[in-house]
Amino acid sequence: MSLRDRLQSILARPMVSNAIIVVILINAVVLGMETSAPLMAKFGPLIVAIDTACLAIFVVELLAKMYVQRLAFFRNGWNLFDFVIVGISLVPGGHTLSVLRALRVLRLLRVISVAPALRRVVEGFVRAIPGMGSVIVLMGMIFYISAVLATQLFGPGFPEWFGDLGASTYSLFQIMTLESWSMGIVRPVMAVYPYAWAFFVPFILITTFAVVNLLVGLIVNSMQDAHNEESSARTDEYRDEVLLRLKAIEARLEARERTDHSPKP
Amino acid sequence: MSLRDRLQSILARPMVSNAIIVVILINAVVLGMETSAPLMAKFGPLIVAIDTACLAIFVVELLAKMYVQRLAFFRNGWNLFDFVIVGISLVPGGHTLSVLRALRVLRLLRVISVAPALRRVVEGFVRAIPGMGSVIVLMGMIFYISAVLATQLFGPGFPEWFGDLGASTYSLFQIMTLESWSMGIVRPVMAVYPYAWAFFVPFILITTFAVVNLLVGLIVNSMQDAHNEESSARTDEYRDEVLLRLKAIEARLEARERTDHSPKP
Amino acid sequence: MSLRDRLQSILARPMVSNAIIVVILINAVVLGMETSAPLMAKFGPLIVAIDTACLAIFVVELLAKMYVQRLAFFRNGWNLFDFVIVGISLVPGGHTLSVLRALRVLRLLRVISVAPALRRVVEGFVRAIPGMGSVIVLMGMIFYISAVLATQLFGPGFPEWFGDLGASTYSLFQIMTLESWSMGIVRPVMAVYPYAWAFFVPFILITTFAVVNLLVGLIVNSMQDAHNEESSARTDEYRDEVLLRLKAIEARLEARERTDHSPKP
Amino acid sequence: MSLRDRLQSILARPMVSNAIIVVILINAVVLGMETSAPLMAKFGPLIVAIDTACLAIFVVELLAKMYVQRLAFFRNGWNLFDFVIVGISLVPGGHTLSVLRALRVLRLLRVISVAPALRRVVEGFVRAIPGMGSVIVLMGMIFYISAVLATQLFGPGFPEWFGDLGASTYSLFQIMTLESWSMGIVRPVMAVYPYAWAFFVPFILITTFAVVNLLVGLIVNSMQDAHNEESSARTDEYRDEVLLRLKAIEARLEARERTDHSPKP
Repeated sequence: MSLRDRLQSILARPMVSNAIIVVILINAVVLGMETSAPLMAKFGPLIVAIDTACLAIFVVELLAKMYVQRLAFFRNGWNLFDFVIVGISLVPGGHTLSVLRALRVLRLLRVISVAPALRRVVEGFVRAIPGMGSVIVLMGMIFYISAVLATQLFGPGFPEWFGDLGASTYSLFQIMTLESWSMGIVRPVMAVYPYAWAFFVPFILITTFAVVNLLVGLIVNSMQDAHNEESSARTDEYRDEVLLRLKAIEARLEARERTDHSPKP
Repeated sequence: MSLRDRLQSILARPMVSNAIIVVILINAVVLGMETSAPLMAKFGPLIVAIDTACLAIFVVELLAKMYVQRLAFFRNGWNLFDFVIVGISLVPGGHTLSVLRALRVLRLLRVISVAPALRRVVEGFVRAIPGMGSVIVLMGMIFYISAVLATQLFGPGFPEWFGDLGASTYSLFQIMTLESWSMGIVRPVMAVYPYAWAFFVPFILITTFAVVNLLVGLIVNSMQDAHNEESSARTDEYRDEVLLRLKAIEARLEARERTDHSPKP
Repeated sequence: MSLRDRLQSILARPMVSNAIIVVILINAVVLGMETSAPLMAKFGPLIVAIDTACLAIFVVELLAKMYVQRLAFFRNGWNLFDFVIVGISLVPGGHTLSVLRALRVLRLLRVISVAPALRRVVEGFVRAIPGMGSVIVLMGMIFYISAVLATQLFGPGFPEWFGDLGASTYSLFQIMTLESWSMGIVRPVMAVYPYAWAFFVPFILITTFAVVNLLVGLIVNSMQDAHNEESSARTDEYRDEVLLRLKAIEARLEARERTDHSPKP
Repeated sequence: MSLRDRLQSILARPMVSNAIIVVILINAVVLGMETSAPLMAKFGPLIVAIDTACLAIFVVELLAKMYVQRLAFFRNGWNLFDFVIVGISLVPGGHTLSVLRALRVLRLLRVISVAPALRRVVEGFVRAIPGMGSVIVLMGMIFYISAVLATQLFGPGFPEWFGDLGASTYSLFQIMTLESWSMGIVRPVMAVYPYAWAFFVPFILITTFAVVNLLVGLIVNSMQDAHNEESSARTDEYRDEVLLRLKAIEARLEARERTDHSPKP
């Protein structure tokens, strides 16, 4: 048994993934403690040491997996996911640039790829996206067209909200979530452009309706998946039995007819 | 083969609609660039030229379609849609009045009429509307009555929000979306009219309940469409086979009975 | 044919209810015009005259119905509805007290009792309420208990929001709709009572979850109603035919057996 | 018949639970009255006396139940629920510490454990939770990671909102409910950190999508429960009858065949 085979059998043990989950949870606590200035002042070096140890364990596990699976490693989406979020923690600037430093906490997302229950939930989410493809493209288009319109119509008067395409898109997203859309944005805009409601109210109605249709689509799809999976098994079994019995009856009747018509002894 | 027939076969090619989609996407980028002052200062004439070229292509395509389909052209809703949104870009004042100028971006909506997937989504949206007809009429009525009531009750004290029917309708729409309804509108109103909550809270409950019923109706309808389309085909096939076999068995039994009762040779 | 019978046949004509709908729509326009000061200044007497005429027609129609149906009139919910909303317009103080004057617009709700499509929608709404009974009682209790708690905990510090049971109930309703719950209410409260979130966050989670369950209940009920109504008819027909044919086959087989066992001639 | 048996039969009477409901309702009114300073000034001693009497009745009922059921008492979740909420009212500090005093109102929740309809609703809520387990764990993780990230990224600039993990979690909960997320939080943050939207917009999209999936899961589960319960009974009956009849027909045919092949007398 080669080193590679032995490694593979070790990595496949449930104990290993449980140990990884424990390491992730310890790392979660430690990363949480790093946000507290008093704790860092007191136990800073210890906290950083545990954090580094956790990271080391993740790196070793990933390297072992890569050694075992070779190129197949990169064909699995979850492996790539682990590779990227662990890789972020290793970027050289990771300890100087505050954003990259902060992103190290994404490492905790590894718990999703390790725990099968969470993995299934996320896979369910991802599987639901293609079905929403057309509606998402349509909404993207509505947003783009509305952003161009809003920039041209209201940009000169309200550069902070509608000064360029980016600002307009953000403001329209805020309006779609209905957050302060009227008192915060549309009423002030209407003080300058009195017919602004004729742009914003239809925008709200259309995007809300599109979101509702996304939701309806999700519900209908889940319902059908659940329906097909569960109740069909029993129905299929029943139907197969009915057809089998009907065929048997027909066969018996046909056999009799043949007997009757054959010359009697 | 006449010019008309040749044009028709050209327009029917998938390559043509793909080319139109490409033109729309180029036009989308160009119209987005027009919102940026620095880009317009640098490449203004080029951007306008590309925009005009895109518009010219749309006009040529539409004219070709009209030539081919003649009066039938106007019987198709999507053709009318294209005709109107391209027409807006050609209105003479379109380059002086800022609103008409801005509306030229609606031209990008042509992507819906060209891409079958988006077309189907929008057709699905439009098909869902008649089923919501009664609830929409009812909500319109509730809004009108509430607007009259609010104008009479709170108009004198709060002319900005409830000064006339239009202002009241807009404010009630804002309240229905729950945006700042209490801190922004009802609490200030209650400072003057202490029983204002007795108008606004039922209004919120009733309109929210009506919206929820719209949503429920949409879900139930989509579910039934999906249900009827998919699972019925197999069920119908199975049922037809069962009935066929049952009839065959009966026929066989009947045939035997007739043989038995006929005089034996 | 007595006067009563003749009246009854007149009232039953579709033309009468159509005429009533027209009167309601005219009344709607007129009541809307009454909210406009300039229009009232110009056409005031005319507007009031038309309004009074519409009211007179409603009163005559109601009296005719009462004469025809006698006591049975009051056994129908929609008649009572008409009686109350028309009655409000006739209350003597109706032209001095501004609230009663404003409530005259409720008269337009008569369109619901006259138009069958709207009637069915409202009846559907009302029929959905009993199914939500338990959850509504539960929410009422949660609101009452939370209002008592909030009044005792935060009343002394924030009398405007939680000063008495009424103020607390209103504020909690606002919080349930998520309007300005944090920036408007809970953050200021937390500045005084730092653990206020431990009351408000669970309150939001519980009431939102209860509302979601109301929604789920509505969807499930509508779905089952739709399901039972539609697809069952065909299924029942199919099942009845299958059982009928199976019984027929059994009967034939039994008949043969009896023939076979009977002494042959 | 021992005292214990007699007590048990008394407690099982519907009259007893009805009486307890009446006591709860009286207690509800009294606890509501305690929040009113003028009422307390006038009838304070009487109100407190009635409240104490109600509490005494609850304690006696609970003690009786414990005497009857002995240790089995603590195996029932609802008994524990009653025990805790009545116990809170008896905590010695309950009349000095204002929070514990206020929590006495939780006693009214006893109406849930006494009224079967409410009990069923709450049991339905509780039963729905395990099915949402994975999504809730996932959301907890997203919240934790986001809170650590937000604290590190925005904590230095906005200590009030993102100063520590607790503050960040609360702010993120507020943002998830979409309350003032943009005008109240993200726009001010973007004034300091211009790319803050790249954190908050995905956070909103992901958490909203997760909440929507919770909702979809609830709907699908309820639908299946309802579906299985109701329509299956009739379907099962029908299917059993079809299979029974088919088997009977086969048996008859088989019996005939055997008769035919047996030597004739």
